[in-house]
Amino acid sequence: METLMKKSTVTKKSLISSISQEKEIHPNDVRHVIQAFLDKMTECLAQGCRLEFRDFGVFEVVMRKQKIGRNPKRAAEPIIIPSRKVVKYTPGKKMRKLIEVNE
Amino acid sequence: METLMKKSTVTKKSLISSISQEKEIHPNDVRHVIQAFLDKMTECLAQGCRLEFRDFGVFEVVMRKQKIGRNPKRAAEPIIIPSRKVVKYTPGKKMRKLIEVNE
Repeated sequence: METLMKKSTVTKKSLISSISQEKEIHPNDVRHVIQAFLDKMTECLAQGCRLEFRDFGVFEVVMRKQKIGRNPKRAAEPIIIPSRKVVKYTPGKKMRKLIEVNE
Repeated sequence: METLMKKSTVTKKSLISSISQEKEIHPNDVRHVIQAFLDKMTECLAQGCRLEFRDFGVFEVVMRKQKIGRNPKRAAEPIIIPSRKVVKYTPGKKMRKLIEVNE
């Protein structure tokens, strides 16, 4: 996988201020809601729940299998990468469509 | 990658009602903020931005390279899976820590 050309980074802060202006909701309320939303998502995934948001996508914790890696400089010695839990995000229909369209 | 045991699914609706109760903000306001947040994330990724939320993680659009696939029933005929854009999510420090701890 390769990263596309240099991208601008958008943070929580900038999203909070634009949502606050658009929806005419006090920025502190917007901040509290968004922070609680992200914290609850984290908490839920840590407990093994699956998160499903229509259009946006699904988050879930999956077990990544043990892999054998190799250090190219010491090819004779395999490195065992143990199995571990990872968060997997699968984009929803709308997300996939919009990403594909914008070439 | 293998899915862990059967998981309960959490939706936007249930997160909205618990955030509304906890933060004492009207559920409609919570709903508008969260929907705007997800919509803006989608829009931003479609435009090629990178989203970075401290603790939670990073979302970005990356190019997945062309791959050669095989249908096991017709192994002689390779199937070319063209390169395409995908949304990649990389969990943040706090997320990774919490996921790993909860074995």
